[in-house]
Amino acid sequence: MALAGEFDIIARIFAPLARDSGALELKDDAAVLTVTDDHQIVVTCDALVSGVHFLKDDPPNSIGYKALAVNLSDLTAKGAYGYVYTLSLALPPETTMEWLEAFADGLAEVQDLTGISLIGGDTTATSGPLTITISALGLVQHEAAITRLGAKAGDRLYVGGPIGDAYLGLRLLQAPALAQDWGLSEEDVDYLIDRYRRPPIATSAALIVRNFAKAAIDVSDGLAADVEKLCNVSHVGAVIETTRIPFSPAARKVLNENPELLAELITAGDDYVPVIAVSENSAGLFESEAEDHGVSFTQLGTVAPPDQIRVLGVNGREMPLKNKGFTHFS
Amino acid sequence: MALAGEFDIIARIFAPLARDSGALELKDDAAVLTVTDDHQIVVTCDALVSGVHFLKDDPPNSIGYKALAVNLSDLTAKGAYGYVYTLSLALPPETTMEWLEAFADGLAEVQDLTGISLIGGDTTATSGPLTITISALGLVQHEAAITRLGAKAGDRLYVGGPIGDAYLGLRLLQAPALAQDWGLSEEDVDYLIDRYRRPPIATSAALIVRNFAKAAIDVSDGLAADVEKLCNVSHVGAVIETTRIPFSPAARKVLNENPELLAELITAGDDYVPVIAVSENSAGLFESEAEDHGVSFTQLGTVAPPDQIRVLGVNGREMPLKNKGFTHFS
Repeated sequence: MALAGEFDIIARIFAPLARDSGALELKDDAAVLTVTDDHQIVVTCDALVSGVHFLKDDPPNSIGYKALAVNLSDLTAKGAYGYVYTLSLALPPETTMEWLEAFADGLAEVQDLTGISLIGGDTTATSGPLTITISALGLVQHEAAITRLGAKAGDRLYVGGPIGDAYLGLRLLQAPALAQDWGLSEEDVDYLIDRYRRPPIATSAALIVRNFAKAAIDVSDGLAADVEKLCNVSHVGAVIETTRIPFSPAARKVLNENPELLAELITAGDDYVPVIAVSENSAGLFESEAEDHGVSFTQLGTVAPPDQIRVLGVNGREMPLKNKGFTHFS
Repeated sequence: MALAGEFDIIARIFAPLARDSGALELKDDAAVLTVTDDHQIVVTCDALVSGVHFLKDDPPNSIGYKALAVNLSDLTAKGAYGYVYTLSLALPPETTMEWLEAFADGLAEVQDLTGISLIGGDTTATSGPLTITISALGLVQHEAAITRLGAKAGDRLYVGGPIGDAYLGLRLLQAPALAQDWGLSEEDVDYLIDRYRRPPIATSAALIVRNFAKAAIDVSDGLAADVEKLCNVSHVGAVIETTRIPFSPAARKVLNENPELLAELITAGDDYVPVIAVSENSAGLFESEAEDHGVSFTQLGTVAPPDQIRVLGVNGREMPLKNKGFTHFS
């Protein structure tokens, strides 16, 4: 079906997602929110461009899911839970109502998982690729937000989920024949592609981050690059032991056959899991609390005195990395 | 100069705009804000696409100015003052550092005028047109935000600035020869083009709106269409008397020569001024307070019982309008 007018799109597709009364049913220029002063607001903003952050032919459901999930991932790394978000869509002419409906279903899935709610946005036409910009507001108890600042030498570094799956999923979408080269089953392929399209959402991770992390960062541009960013702000160094990095069974299969891909897995990004620094003293309690809440954190290294980030390969020797992570405009 | 990496762009161009400590100098995934509970937060989101909301060759300074000004205009119509904003940029390959620097100067001008501050954002590459998405947060005293709901039959309708200038400015940019047809001086042309590129910012308007408006809307899609939207939410009708609409001296010259352009001026949009409903009883006080604060509001009609919006032409008879305003996806 051809695209309806902007008012119809809002009323039919997006108003059902506006579950916070402050959204004024999306019938106004703006939303009005009440925040009590025992909380602070965490604000994040992530844009996704078709062909860069997702593939044009990805299911629209997964595109909506991913657009919101990557913003929640930023909030989680601050220890904040999702509250509300604005959605800006620049739509190319071929967009249909069916596409938008499925896209909104993906947003709704993340809303159901996390309690975040749409409060406003803008929809425009573009001659370029579909572009989705979400700015999300999260809430965190006063003074409890975790930033990149606060890691100290001797802290342990933990990661909140597997690394590299999304990168492998993207490679498989671009070149399906790789599945055979890599010795992957159909289930492995489905799993990896799904991780590219639908980043993990660990709903209790924010609580654990808030209670135990001294510093945290969301891994989106590559594990090595993002650990380096955290270290730069905290004025520390770090050692990452690649033998400790949690890889999914599917990614392990690929690495067993192609050990040279290790460098790519830890620099490609798109993981959307938190890396956090936890003090040695609280590590025991942290690990048991994380387990109790069903959140998977794995130690992958330690915070070191100010220095370069050192990434140790399978032989324990430092790995040379051409780039530590993804960068636009190179 | 070719575009630097994303980190350099943030550090050199945008970090100086992040004047709120909650922005964490843009060195984090997100910003952390404290809002006391005597205030509510107003959230707005506007996207601008090159070739749609501004012209590719507009001075980058004015593009930055406009992108932020149109969001502030939404906040003003809620009675809120600007607090912080996120900025998402999808940049085509030809973007230079000089362009970005001038763009940021335009943002800085609006920040200086209004006190709003950058707190975060995202920068991506695109193969399509430059797209700018801003989500702005404003503050308003608790329960003081003005919405589209609340206008009653008998209220007066006021508009907070001239109508149609931006439309004429755009026409002149597209067809400079019109200046002669319309009998405009060089100053007139400069004024109208400047109104297209740099929407008016009335820094005290939010205060007046908050204190006197029963309902309000930002005129961005066309005067007639936006008054209709306000009326739909308030379940009222309205009469707009075109003889009362404030037109700039330059727009008056055009209308004197081309009275048939009246319909276009009141439906074209891009005005970014508030229309508000004020009760008959408080109209006197409102007018004197507005004048004291140097904010120009002009009565252009009245709120009526539920009905269509009636727009009365120069002869006092109802004007037929093909469209009441701008719409994407028609």
